[in-house]
Amino acid sequence: MSTVPASWLDEIPARLAEIERAHLLRRRRVVQPAGGARLLVDGQPMLAFCSNDYLGLAGHPALAEAAREATRSFGVGSGGSPLVSGHSAANAALEQELAAFVQLPRALYFYAGYATNTGIIPALVGDGDALFSDALNHACLIDGARLSRASIHRYPHADLAALEAALAASTARRKLVVSDAVFSMDGDLIDIPALLALCERFDALLLLDDAHGFGVLGPQGRGSLAQAGLTGVAASRRVLYMATLGKAAGVAGAFVAGDDALVEWLLQKTRTYIFATAAPPLLASALRTSLSLIEAADDLRQHLAARIAQLRAGLARLPPALGWQLLPSDTAVQALVIGSNEAALAVMESLREQGLWVPAIRPPTVPAGTARLRIALSAAHTAEDVDQLLQALHRHAALALPVPAAA
Amino acid sequence: MSTVPASWLDEIPARLAEIERAHLLRRRRVVQPAGGARLLVDGQPMLAFCSNDYLGLAGHPALAEAAREATRSFGVGSGGSPLVSGHSAANAALEQELAAFVQLPRALYFYAGYATNTGIIPALVGDGDALFSDALNHACLIDGARLSRASIHRYPHADLAALEAALAASTARRKLVVSDAVFSMDGDLIDIPALLALCERFDALLLLDDAHGFGVLGPQGRGSLAQAGLTGVAASRRVLYMATLGKAAGVAGAFVAGDDALVEWLLQKTRTYIFATAAPPLLASALRTSLSLIEAADDLRQHLAARIAQLRAGLARLPPALGWQLLPSDTAVQALVIGSNEAALAVMESLREQGLWVPAIRPPTVPAGTARLRIALSAAHTAEDVDQLLQALHRHAALALPVPAAA
Ligand SMILES: Cc1ncc(COP(=O)(O)O)c(C=O)c1O
Ligand SMILES: Cc1ncc(COP(=O)(O)O)c(C=O)c1O
Repeated sequence: MSTVPASWLDEIPARLAEIERAHLLRRRRVVQPAGGARLLVDGQPMLAFCSNDYLGLAGHPALAEAAREATRSFGVGSGGSPLVSGHSAANAALEQELAAFVQLPRALYFYAGYATNTGIIPALVGDGDALFSDALNHACLIDGARLSRASIHRYPHADLAALEAALAASTARRKLVVSDAVFSMDGDLIDIPALLALCERFDALLLLDDAHGFGVLGPQGRGSLAQAGLTGVAASRRVLYMATLGKAAGVAGAFVAGDDALVEWLLQKTRTYIFATAAPPLLASALRTSLSLIEAADDLRQHLAARIAQLRAGLARLPPALGWQLLPSDTAVQALVIGSNEAALAVMESLREQGLWVPAIRPPTVPAGTARLRIALSAAHTAEDVDQLLQALHRHAALALPVPAAA
Repeated sequence: MSTVPASWLDEIPARLAEIERAHLLRRRRVVQPAGGARLLVDGQPMLAFCSNDYLGLAGHPALAEAAREATRSFGVGSGGSPLVSGHSAANAALEQELAAFVQLPRALYFYAGYATNTGIIPALVGDGDALFSDALNHACLIDGARLSRASIHRYPHADLAALEAALAASTARRKLVVSDAVFSMDGDLIDIPALLALCERFDALLLLDDAHGFGVLGPQGRGSLAQAGLTGVAASRRVLYMATLGKAAGVAGAFVAGDDALVEWLLQKTRTYIFATAAPPLLASALRTSLSLIEAADDLRQHLAARIAQLRAGLARLPPALGWQLLPSDTAVQALVIGSNEAALAVMESLREQGLWVPAIRPPTVPAGTARLRIALSAAHTAEDVDQLLQALHRHAALALPVPAAA
């Protein structure tokens, strides 16, 4: 009697069960817009605090109208790489407008942010070069760094003294510093002028990922680099500014902008750009409209700032005995660290029962022991929406804590 | 007097000039649809043989209508990762339909093909595992392999005896074979049954990238795996079938399909999926319409097959003295190898002057010394279109060859 040989594929179900036991199984929910910050989630109406649509533009009628209109001249797909026949007139026009908007010499428009960073980093540095990376950088910066074969120096989050020491110690001729501008799971903003000063001093190029700042920070939403006063005539050729277009811009895609020769170099060398299909022109067209909406959206940015202040004030009143920690952040991303995976999931569940959707973010997305609620605010939230979240959290806290002994 | 310190960034313009001297500079052209296979290219009308829109669906009115209609319920952007709030009802429905269409248990829908392969390979194998890769695989399979940290065994193109020897020699417990189904720059189809038989024998998983076969090959365009009779009840749990949706499907994006537990594993582990924005629901909606058009498009596939036969017959009559080589291919991708970069560019230029756009593909996209015209046919080409290309090539050939001595 012969036995069926065991396959390594047999282990997959067991490994999935292990993930589940560690409270790390990820579940998708099917969503449908239901007005404002409301969503139907698996068919249930929910007030959501989890979208990256920080200005509430993803559902703006002008964006949809621009996309619809574009289908009439451009159809749907681009048909190929931008280096072959995929560089449509809509995409080309958007690229010009992106560069003007962020006040940098030239931009390159990509179909996705993840692919932008995994592509441009290996186009810039390689074997024998040195790359310096903040410990809390986004996954795609980490993957791009790995792909590049440059030697990687990971410095503690936002520790510019450590970065300075690492830069000073490096003998590599090509040095690249990569950093989120606004950190995606903490919401804090890096000190861009200080970071750039280090790069200037040590002849390093700085790649700044402003996925969560573009559209929200800076004058007219021009992003964190403009907020730091480092665009236009003050632009440094040592900065490549990268941002995504599926968050505040409400669509999808990304771009990188900077010095003309550097951007031309990226066009010539970035594999994720050259060997991939260009974004559909209808998305580029929607984005052109989005840029003009963003530019004019000071009211939305003010409203968002008020909601951020309101939320932080309310969270500060949560009982300290819970042991929760609100991380410092002035941005739309507010992280309330709970601790264990199980506890974070329990808070998320309790909110869900109250009609609120706030995702619990667990390792490996965040460091072990720092599972958290990532509360994403948007200009689509009303003051009442934020109040509702605060009340639900206070209610949960009251139930979670032991009843205080009578005084 | 102090001198301005030299920066490594100063070398960029010189390196660009070097690329130009080697006839390797890539130039983008701004395109706009102009009916059928015609495009406005930098403002000039051109008959194009370079789109991956093999069925001519990118400009189909039903796709555009589906995209427009979807904006009314879904807006434009998805707002986030599919693991958070980006998994819209449209995307979820598409995923089900993709699995049914390719007759495999489950599918996972991605925003782009490049990101699919760079993400799923590292989710499947890692340090200590072994990966076997065809020498002509697409760039994104190569990048995914590098990212995975598995040890990489590159075998000569389509050399299954070499693959067999490498598999037999490997002691790694987890083995992954990755291959294009239809090779993107040559157009040839790998022997899928033989490839899978090797994987079954050596307990390897097979990742098959059918970017250029999906929609075109197999019954109702279900792809190369269906053409090989290896879907439905004959499906093997050892195959992950991947295809892109920006080519024959006429939109953008990609998917991977296979065994239920394996696809769940990918959902849990693929960084490019988890940490990235889901595709806009309007694209998923257009793709749902595209699937039903593909299924009913036997007439388009027949028309395309006739154009392929017509082109090959005409190319076979080119004078052998040119030294050009038409690679074997039954697919819409027809490669005419010219040789040097300069010669390939000269043919491309001559065609351009005659109103035809056929891209010259040069290293590193193809091996050195095999610069070629990559003629991409589409159901949008008429018999007259193909004739026009053939005549232009024969005209160029007549001018390029020395006048034969009188007999
Ligand atoms: C900081 C950061 N960079 C890049 C990305 C990836 O961009 P995209 O979603 O467009 O792929 C994300 C998340 O989506 C992000 O948070
Ligand atoms: C074989 C193959 N796989 C993957 C891709 C990348 O897919 P996408 O263009 O959707 O990023 C391509 C080219 O575009 C390809 O030719």
